[in-house]
Amino acid sequence: MSKIVIALGGNALGNSPEEQSLLVQQTVKPIVDLIRGGHQVIIAHGNGPQVGMINNAFEAARGAGVLRHGMPFPECGAMSQGYIGYHLQNALLRELAQQGIAKEVVTLITQVEVDPADPGFQNPTKPIDPFYKQAEAEAIAQATGYVMKEDANRGWRRVIASPKPIGVVEIATVRTLVDAGIIVITVGGGGIPVVRDGLGYRGVAAVIDKDFASRKLADLLDADYLFILTAVDHVSLRYGKADQVDLTELTVSQAQAYIREGHFAKGSMLPKVEAASEFAQGKPGRIAVIGSLDKAALCLEGKSGTRVTL
Amino acid sequence: MSKIVIALGGNALGNSPEEQSLLVQQTVKPIVDLIRGGHQVIIAHGNGPQVGMINNAFEAARGAGVLRHGMPFPECGAMSQGYIGYHLQNALLRELAQQGIAKEVVTLITQVEVDPADPGFQNPTKPIDPFYKQAEAEAIAQATGYVMKEDANRGWRRVIASPKPIGVVEIATVRTLVDAGIIVITVGGGGIPVVRDGLGYRGVAAVIDKDFASRKLADLLDADYLFILTAVDHVSLRYGKADQVDLTELTVSQAQAYIREGHFAKGSMLPKVEAASEFAQGKPGRIAVIGSLDKAALCLEGKSGTRVTL
Repeated sequence: MSKIVIALGGNALGNSPEEQSLLVQQTVKPIVDLIRGGHQVIIAHGNGPQVGMINNAFEAARGAGVLRHGMPFPECGAMSQGYIGYHLQNALLRELAQQGIAKEVVTLITQVEVDPADPGFQNPTKPIDPFYKQAEAEAIAQATGYVMKEDANRGWRRVIASPKPIGVVEIATVRTLVDAGIIVITVGGGGIPVVRDGLGYRGVAAVIDKDFASRKLADLLDADYLFILTAVDHVSLRYGKADQVDLTELTVSQAQAYIREGHFAKGSMLPKVEAASEFAQGKPGRIAVIGSLDKAALCLEGKSGTRVTL
Repeated sequence: MSKIVIALGGNALGNSPEEQSLLVQQTVKPIVDLIRGGHQVIIAHGNGPQVGMINNAFEAARGAGVLRHGMPFPECGAMSQGYIGYHLQNALLRELAQQGIAKEVVTLITQVEVDPADPGFQNPTKPIDPFYKQAEAEAIAQATGYVMKEDANRGWRRVIASPKPIGVVEIATVRTLVDAGIIVITVGGGGIPVVRDGLGYRGVAAVIDKDFASRKLADLLDADYLFILTAVDHVSLRYGKADQVDLTELTVSQAQAYIREGHFAKGSMLPKVEAASEFAQGKPGRIAVIGSLDKAALCLEGKSGTRVTL
């Protein structure tokens, strides 16, 4: 029996509630296959389109005068955890029941700690919808202190920091549940980003990359596997070109060499390879796999995906 | 050591994210006092204004053409659990740390089962913002099947069902966490309302009264106490009149007699007294208290609040 942290990518979720509630019914099948195999599974997921949609809705409501206040970004993230987690846990419960597996599933509202001195905060780069005209963007920047940047010719958007995770606030609860055999959905969207503030924590406007948050989670749980699941079967060199090479096995030092050589797209494959490499580097025997969601069972057998090991 | 389910009312939360994040810092103090006393505390809460705000924001976004889809009511409820739970758990963690108590706190996205044959579905009565003009309301009713009703002279609103809870889907997880000494925030807003659908569950547009959901939760956990905390110190007869009588002790049969005599306001004190009475009726020795949030410790000692016992 292995302990497997699964990081679900955007292809696992959906762009509207109707689409998502249908799509997650497919998403959960390969996950339940792993659970049926006796493995302990912990599920993390992204939230880019979903938190953008929530933020958009509140900005539109403020713009239309329906609400007199905005909705801070950490609160939007908390909402996205509830929204996505509900769909995932509901779909998992159904699939487990259909396969005759008696297991509980639960979504935890999860805060992830970041360092206020993280260089990400000095140079926010993560764009957040909606788009504004220049004059609007300048007015918003003046009123709120938001950093607004022009995005090609599409307009102006708010950009926020993408700091690295340094801890998962609710980790002891995750451990308790995993030990009790309960399927846990956690660090959704990379977690609600918080910084230490006195003896407590305070939310900050930021987006933690879900691959890094999943890596931190897998590390803290001392997982055997980190599965970073996406829409492609492998990490590739010269992706999409005539001489594309799919990678099936990578050592940490090979992965780091490819990273240095600039093989992987920022915001896409790069954080996946970095997170996989960092996880594998933590301890001999650990296996990180970047592969396709619908081949999760084959990834475990080493028959699909790109494996990263020390 | 007693097991106490606390149902927080509207006065414990807030009407905007800024207001709520300040208010919950006060809300958690009497709760942490109970925890410091060695008691197991499980927290439930309402979500009326908050889920209304979320629903409003998505309706405004759809109205402004920013979103092409709406947001179903169960999903809005899931978001409200994330939003409120994040604020509560963050504030609890801070207050616990300040009092030197090492405890984990976690919010569970929680589904509450209702019966599709519940009479509430035949006659929806719970109004949901926003207000519409008659023509808009009729168009929405035609397009969506929503039930729209005129509300005095303020306009038309959607009304949805308020069925009784018959189960808490994630109850085994709640038990596991409570047994492990973890503070759990659950059945937020009365829970995400779901009905059985094949081997799984399906969300339905409804609002489960948080007092009834808390009663069901307390029942399933076999709690010693159900605290229904609000802004007043007692249940009263002839509330607000010159001859108001505050009640300090009530038997279940007395409570039921007062309910039959129509002493309590629908949607306000009535569900509290009903929930308290149902909980106390379940088992000798159980104590339900309806009282004021800031006097929770006194409620436990029997020095404040209205106690309902068999």
